Amino acid sequence: MKKLINDPADVVAEALAGMAAAHPELRVDDKHRLVLRGDAPVPGKVGLVSGGGSGHEPLHGGFVGPGMLDAACAGEVFTSPVPDQIQAATAAVDAGAGVLHIVKNYTGDVMNFEMAAELAAAETGTEVVSVVVNDDVAVQDSLYTAGRRGVGGTVVVEKLAGAAAAQGRPLAEVAAVASRVNANSRSMGMALTSCTVPAAGKPTFDLPDTEMEIGIGIHGEPGRRREPLAPAREVAEMLVQPIVSDLPFVKGDTVICFVNGMGGTPLLELYIVYHEVARMLRGHGIDIARSLVGPYITSLEMAGCSVTLTKVDDELLGLWDAPVRTPALRWGA
Amino acid sequence: MKKLINDPADVVAEALAGMAAAHPELRVDDKHRLVLRGDAPVPGKVGLVSGGGSGHEPLHGGFVGPGMLDAACAGEVFTSPVPDQIQAATAAVDAGAGVLHIVKNYTGDVMNFEMAAELAAAETGTEVVSVVVNDDVAVQDSLYTAGRRGVGGTVVVEKLAGAAAAQGRPLAEVAAVASRVNANSRSMGMALTSCTVPAAGKPTFDLPDTEMEIGIGIHGEPGRRREPLAPAREVAEMLVQPIVSDLPFVKGDTVICFVNGMGGTPLLELYIVYHEVARMLRGHGIDIARSLVGPYITSLEMAGCSVTLTKVDDELLGLWDAPVRTPALRWGA
Repeated sequence: MKKLINDPADVVAEALAGMAAAHPELRVDDKHRLVLRGDAPVPGKVGLVSGGGSGHEPLHGGFVGPGMLDAACAGEVFTSPVPDQIQAATAAVDAGAGVLHIVKNYTGDVMNFEMAAELAAAETGTEVVSVVVNDDVAVQDSLYTAGRRGVGGTVVVEKLAGAAAAQGRPLAEVAAVASRVNANSRSMGMALTSCTVPAAGKPTFDLPDTEMEIGIGIHGEPGRRREPLAPAREVAEMLVQPIVSDLPFVKGDTVICFVNGMGGTPLLELYIVYHEVARMLRGHGIDIARSLVGPYITSLEMAGCSVTLTKVDDELLGLWDAPVRTPALRWGA
Repeated sequence: MKKLINDPADVVAEALAGMAAAHPELRVDDKHRLVLRGDAPVPGKVGLVSGGGSGHEPLHGGFVGPGMLDAACAGEVFTSPVPDQIQAATAAVDAGAGVLHIVKNYTGDVMNFEMAAELAAAETGTEVVSVVVNDDVAVQDSLYTAGRRGVGGTVVVEKLAGAAAAQGRPLAEVAAVASRVNANSRSMGMALTSCTVPAAGKPTFDLPDTEMEIGIGIHGEPGRRREPLAPAREVAEMLVQPIVSDLPFVKGDTVICFVNGMGGTPLLELYIVYHEVARMLRGHGIDIARSLVGPYITSLEMAGCSVTLTKVDDELLGLWDAPVRTPALRWGA
């Protein structure tokens, strides 16, 4: 295992210590493994909490800051955060306007966020609404999931719901934005290589030198099928076609187009994929209004990519363009 | 070779097409393989041109925009851009206030930028000043370099000189800022794995599963030595110690601390390295005023990292904080 780590058991704690040192505007709660806005709770504002297993950085801690999340709960690598931890995050960002939980659809995450919401209601009287993100069109049920998995759409949900909260909208409206973004987002990913969980010390799965996995999950869960290696334009087609036909996205639609790197694929290649995706969408008569290209929801050092499309109207576009100031996504502020 | 590409011969052209599609505020000159500010030349402003071999993305094209570069010249992967191309970039950004060339110290780059500067003077009468970046403390001469190589410090030079140009300073002053930043920057890198140049189809070098290369160049050029794999804290020590003792950085100095990913190393690990680097600098009494953590000057999918320190005063810090709006670095705008 070739990794820049110390003891595999300390990976999450030490990465959080690095985030605390590099981003003094954030506050890291070592005990609960939380990344928080330094100024949380923000008076009058709905608090946004997300989280999940570590290993997907910058998701979620890198999206904490004005215009996006108020807190992120870091689980062990590819392991759900625990209810106490989520409850602590919820209490820390509750300014009286309620808290939105943004939860990727994995069985452990959904269960632990639910328990945390019950604890928060019982112990601090915090009103919590949860939105579960399930944008992955690849498979129905999976290794850790009943129903569809939550993947790249999570980044878009966190950005747009974060902007809605920053505008001072009430909890029900912020939650409605998050639900609407999820309902209008579809994603699919692929991998050229496996990743290696530090505590395991060996690759999660074997993928021969001549094959790739289409429809992979962000923990290396099996996808739809294995295929021989193919050129980027064929790979893009294998991802775009199922996404477009699922919603379906149709001629005249306007979208945010997000080409995500899984961690080990260089930006050079992501732009090649983006070129193919954009060409295909033009062919479908779908208009790309905004784009995002880079490693934003990763699987450690897995090589591969995912494509996410979110159908947007003027309101959602305005929320995308609204100022955001986080370690990983920052503009207009 | 597992890569998301089509024909290896088309990698650079297709990635540029992807950049053009994803970033409508930029202009891509397909013929000359340039990424340009859409509004270049900017009246009254000194133009900033950089460039080099591709494969280091987001460097340089991802740093084109207000507050940083006016144009970036993309060579083939790990191959210098040609004089005609650099001259075309120079002409395109010349608003009459002259043009600064920011050149990483590789023999081919230096030669071709020099020839371009002569062509620009002869053919369009453009005044060009060149600043050569040579911040790598690892080795004296190298495979493609006489003297020290230009590496991570290039990002800091481009940011601070770009901010000086955006303030409307004259060419001599902008060049002086670039020179001063270079003189106060030191870097060193390491690799856990090789990268694979698409046209070559196989890894540039062999690195056994149990070894790493300390002092590696960004094209996989040999470093100082090979070592058995070691924990992140020892790796950080192997990079920080030579950097600190070289300038030297001393107690009471204020620095920008940049922990860079080589392409295949996930952000989780970069924050672990950052934590170690920050701890060591505290031990030396060196104050980190600003930090940057992520893959900004890469070597395709190489796994590894580099550390860059730039000693700064209030003027340089102000230039770091000044607004920048590029695909890869964006704040305050």
